[in-house]
Amino acid sequence: MGGGPSTPALAAAVAEAGGLGFLAAGYKTADVVRADIEAVRALTRRPFGVNLFAPPQPVADPDAVARFAAALDGEAERYGVALGEPRHDDDDWAAKLALVAELAVPVVSFTFGGPPRGDVRALQHAGAAVWVTVTRPEEAVAAAEEGADALVVQGTEAGGHRATFDDAAPGDIGLLALLQLVAGVTDLPLIATGGIMTGRGVAAVLAAGADAAALGTAFMLCPEAATAPAHRKALTAPGDTALTRAYTGRTARGIVNRWLREHHDDAPSAYPDVHYLTAKVRAAARSAGDPDGFHLWAGQAHTLAEAVPAGELVARLAAEARDALRAATVR
Amino acid sequence: MGGGPSTPALAAAVAEAGGLGFLAAGYKTADVVRADIEAVRALTRRPFGVNLFAPPQPVADPDAVARFAAALDGEAERYGVALGEPRHDDDDWAAKLALVAELAVPVVSFTFGGPPRGDVRALQHAGAAVWVTVTRPEEAVAAAEEGADALVVQGTEAGGHRATFDDAAPGDIGLLALLQLVAGVTDLPLIATGGIMTGRGVAAVLAAGADAAALGTAFMLCPEAATAPAHRKALTAPGDTALTRAYTGRTARGIVNRWLREHHDDAPSAYPDVHYLTAKVRAAARSAGDPDGFHLWAGQAHTLAEAVPAGELVARLAAEARDALRAATVR
Repeated sequence: MGGGPSTPALAAAVAEAGGLGFLAAGYKTADVVRADIEAVRALTRRPFGVNLFAPPQPVADPDAVARFAAALDGEAERYGVALGEPRHDDDDWAAKLALVAELAVPVVSFTFGGPPRGDVRALQHAGAAVWVTVTRPEEAVAAAEEGADALVVQGTEAGGHRATFDDAAPGDIGLLALLQLVAGVTDLPLIATGGIMTGRGVAAVLAAGADAAALGTAFMLCPEAATAPAHRKALTAPGDTALTRAYTGRTARGIVNRWLREHHDDAPSAYPDVHYLTAKVRAAARSAGDPDGFHLWAGQAHTLAEAVPAGELVARLAAEARDALRAATVR
Repeated sequence: MGGGPSTPALAAAVAEAGGLGFLAAGYKTADVVRADIEAVRALTRRPFGVNLFAPPQPVADPDAVARFAAALDGEAERYGVALGEPRHDDDDWAAKLALVAELAVPVVSFTFGGPPRGDVRALQHAGAAVWVTVTRPEEAVAAAEEGADALVVQGTEAGGHRATFDDAAPGDIGLLALLQLVAGVTDLPLIATGGIMTGRGVAAVLAAGADAAALGTAFMLCPEAATAPAHRKALTAPGDTALTRAYTGRTARGIVNRWLREHHDDAPSAYPDVHYLTAKVRAAARSAGDPDGFHLWAGQAHTLAEAVPAGELVARLAAEARDALRAATVR
């Protein structure tokens, strides 16, 4: 839930309700993440997690970014801002790793791959549990070998970026198939994510062997989330989602809109270069309330999201999950 | 499981073990289906089902079939047989509908859409329960309006043909997301299918609110299945699957092989025309034991399939599902 919806208030509300709230650290400087962590701790004494983006691969074809920039000239004109300068960076990786260790964040999860074994050990030594997000059985094996404490198993249903280690293979395995496959290659605890919107969905992944369910889209309409108004509106309306690199240069699932339809075919695999190229234009569209000009990240079951306080949602999901397991046992 | 793996012996073994065995009627004449049904009834007195293909849409672009045929010349040469004559038919639809009514088949399920209301009523009058396979919430609404008794909810994980009503929108919704979405638009009983290979998978869909789980790939290594040897071998080896029209002109999931890689991009949406065009070549490759020359239908978790008798598999799945629900309830 990086790039907007994630807030300290949301993470704290989930934690206070008995869930494990998360802060998205992606796109932010280490200083901003520090302030976010302090804000969570001012709101709750309960454990919480921070999610970091692992450093991206080098861009395969720099010329492709230039060609894509040319294709986006009309977008810049439409929203009245210049395209950004595409650049390649590591999202302040070393500083954020040091920060979450320094602040003894209870759970640190990773997207786009995990840290190498030495960093995993350092985090564990600092008191953090290290969770690595995986989208294929091979990634689960690799993360286990580096010493991860648990795996976040991300099905293709999930909104936002695919956590896949290599964007050349973004993965399309459905959550339930993936849970069964990953359980076949590791005994690590599994946290299931992707398309879970209801207590029945939570119950389902627990029955499949997961130790917990992780929900993103389900919380995006909560008042504590900083989801943009046009994004909120799109989430509640019927609308197909698709995987695309059109917004950031890295495969992510969003609601199909004009931008996705017009730029999907041209978008190269070039993250975060394309993110920086498009960020100002997307921000302008978002500010203007135009849902056709920015990324409407959403899981496949987004229409089931409800605008209720996060604490109420956590309590409801837990109660529904208990009921669903009871009903299934009777059946 | 049409086009090979499905046999009366497999359906009967599943039925005898307490499951609901199915016969695949697609691609077969009504006379052959009659013989299959009689063979099942000679083996078991328990209920079973028959799956029918609903008639396809007209082909959008007949020239595209001719162009695809030209692209397949090398395949015909490679396997030493001529390409087939592409033709458009309805898979003996009326005769098979009449047959399953005449023989009072207990459950009749449909792929590629369901029958209109009048035919649904006629089947129900003959004693059949009518199940329509759906891949999107809109299809669930449509099937309910025509009077279906239950819905088979097919996630993108499923092997073989997407059951989608319209091949132009083959659908990519993961099973767990789809179950939650469909439960939101209908109160009909739901049968979940797609990527379910284990008792945990069965437990998961029951917890998600399904009344039953339908498994295909999980039974393809059973001795009672007529799965080709090269297909069996491919199912047990690690290998990605993909959705493609390259074999039949209709979107289906199979293990990625040479044929899929070389012909995926050229394949038109033209079913069953392309099926007839390629059938002889694929049959020759299958007979020759070459897994690169025919459709290796498989769900996304195919590596979990086990070569055990079907009755043993049903018993094991049921026991594992019970244990999984118990364990999840404790968690």
